[in-house]
Amino acid sequence: MKFIECKNLKAKPETVTSFGKLFTDYMYVREYADGAWQEGCIMPFDALELLPCASVLHYGQAVFEGLKAYRNACGEVRLFRARDNFERMQTSCARLCIPPVDTEEAYSALVKLVKLEREWIPTERGTSLYIRPFVFAADDSLGVHAAKKYKFIIILSPSGAYYSHGFAPVALKVEREYVRAGRGGTGAYKVIGNYAASIKAGEEAAALGYDQVLWLDGQSRRYVEEVGSMNIFFVLDGKVITPELNGTILPGITRDSVIKLLKSKGIPVEERRIDIKEIIDGAKSGALTEAFGSGTAAVISPVDRLGDDGRDYVIGKVGAVGKIAQMLFDELPAIQTGKIPDPFSWVNKIV
Amino acid sequence: MKFIECKNLKAKPETVTSFGKLFTDYMYVREYADGAWQEGCIMPFDALELLPCASVLHYGQAVFEGLKAYRNACGEVRLFRARDNFERMQTSCARLCIPPVDTEEAYSALVKLVKLEREWIPTERGTSLYIRPFVFAADDSLGVHAAKKYKFIIILSPSGAYYSHGFAPVALKVEREYVRAGRGGTGAYKVIGNYAASIKAGEEAAALGYDQVLWLDGQSRRYVEEVGSMNIFFVLDGKVITPELNGTILPGITRDSVIKLLKSKGIPVEERRIDIKEIIDGAKSGALTEAFGSGTAAVISPVDRLGDDGRDYVIGKVGAVGKIAQMLFDELPAIQTGKIPDPFSWVNKIV
Repeated sequence: MKFIECKNLKAKPETVTSFGKLFTDYMYVREYADGAWQEGCIMPFDALELLPCASVLHYGQAVFEGLKAYRNACGEVRLFRARDNFERMQTSCARLCIPPVDTEEAYSALVKLVKLEREWIPTERGTSLYIRPFVFAADDSLGVHAAKKYKFIIILSPSGAYYSHGFAPVALKVEREYVRAGRGGTGAYKVIGNYAASIKAGEEAAALGYDQVLWLDGQSRRYVEEVGSMNIFFVLDGKVITPELNGTILPGITRDSVIKLLKSKGIPVEERRIDIKEIIDGAKSGALTEAFGSGTAAVISPVDRLGDDGRDYVIGKVGAVGKIAQMLFDELPAIQTGKIPDPFSWVNKIV
Repeated sequence: MKFIECKNLKAKPETVTSFGKLFTDYMYVREYADGAWQEGCIMPFDALELLPCASVLHYGQAVFEGLKAYRNACGEVRLFRARDNFERMQTSCARLCIPPVDTEEAYSALVKLVKLEREWIPTERGTSLYIRPFVFAADDSLGVHAAKKYKFIIILSPSGAYYSHGFAPVALKVEREYVRAGRGGTGAYKVIGNYAASIKAGEEAAALGYDQVLWLDGQSRRYVEEVGSMNIFFVLDGKVITPELNGTILPGITRDSVIKLLKSKGIPVEERRIDIKEIIDGAKSGALTEAFGSGTAAVISPVDRLGDDGRDYVIGKVGAVGKIAQMLFDELPAIQTGKIPDPFSWVNKIV
């Protein structure tokens, strides 16, 4: 791996409160050309020179991942399930005909980069180093086809606590007009076009006072899929349920971690098709006691209100966090940061 | 409008045979910042500096258009339905929460740019100046939401004749696995993610010896939607039919031109839901006499073979072009290039 030294290191902030706005001094860049991934390089975080005909700007052939590194007061640095992210990146690449990046090579580049930048990782509770690996098509010509040149880049963003004002529940709008992903599409992959397509629904929900949308399937507009850009869990009739991975839902790594952590505690999670009617009926009757999203950014995002067709339904108590969501929000970050043991081998202590 | 002179003009090629590979000396760039589109600038075609956290690379919030300018032997330059492209770009922008670019301002910028670059426009039959307007999110931070900064750019690519070896029919594979767009999605808009999502189906069809895929709807996988990245027409039982604009099909400007041109000749076009079974039955019985795609790049793309479920169905005669496709391929370019009168006011002679 090549290395280009950064001559002017930036000043590190004393505290970090933002997400995705601040970047460290270095990035990792690896190019695909002449039919192969070339030698990677750790180099100063700086502007990329892209011709205006660069294919990613025209046809969106690009995928990404999101994961976190944590540092504790002793200076230890941990990655959480990083190889799983690079494995998923391979499936995303395959869906868009992007040549896959080898998981072990990507992992080893990431470890080098994070070690180099470890002083950038904040240590306060809830903070982390957000890691963004991404791959994009870099051909300098127009035409709808798989590109011949790509760039794989990892950038690092020291990030504040997601819940800066405490662990607060959010309100969801059941989305009846827009659809996140249909079968035969790209919903199960972390491809950039999925996110652009989701913005309008989010803005319309926000204008009505909701924090996120609850996506339904495109086929029947009846079955629950995801929430915003997270997976969704419900506690209905005392059972934890989540939509099954059906080809249109992103196989979230936090989703998988929630399922495994709950199972290890003797709490089974049913992965199945979930009719939105069950959920609304459960909210009405009180059988629905909890709902929460799971994702890398927030880890757990409890839901206390569901809006549908002009009516609002309260889940549990307004402003209150359910027992299971609270337990997950206490334990998952504790495993991630090394405060409690990790029986799942999810964590890699790299420093 | 600002102007930055290009110090080193490139040599213009004697003949052009490629598509989307060669670009002229200048481009038009206009930035959105502080809540408004700023003054545009015609400047040298050159690399853009984009930070690796530029939002378009991560969330695909970007749209584009494609249109053409033509130059004849007398040096006259014509644009074809350019305002319609900018009108459609507004609908694409709205779908992705991108602030719309005023049609007249975009049109007037385009006219200035094309006039400046008119010597680049090839004049041989079938050649043109391919025009690519596009808008992308240019925030320098991560997070799934509408960006606050954008760039609207127009680049110009002198392009060779689409059918360099003569007007040749293509073979289509009926696509039963992948879906181009579902309802509630972005199929009716020219957003970049649609194109990335279509690449894999195209590659799998190519591996089986087909040129393009024939997309079916995501809901029932039964109704014909588009072909590759073109609209599709059939001549069935002597009637011209095309899928109706149902919210998942791109409202093609060539599609609209085909419908209007045929109607002006007393040939009605039925826009309706088309079951793939009708088409395959028609191919078997001989009731399906023609099929052709319509789009900016090829204008008309005749189809002589349809593959489905391992079987091939011939439409008309192998290698032969149907009467209606041939007439359209003769007349539409003749209108576009000013060889015959334009009763539709589609053409703007700008030089």
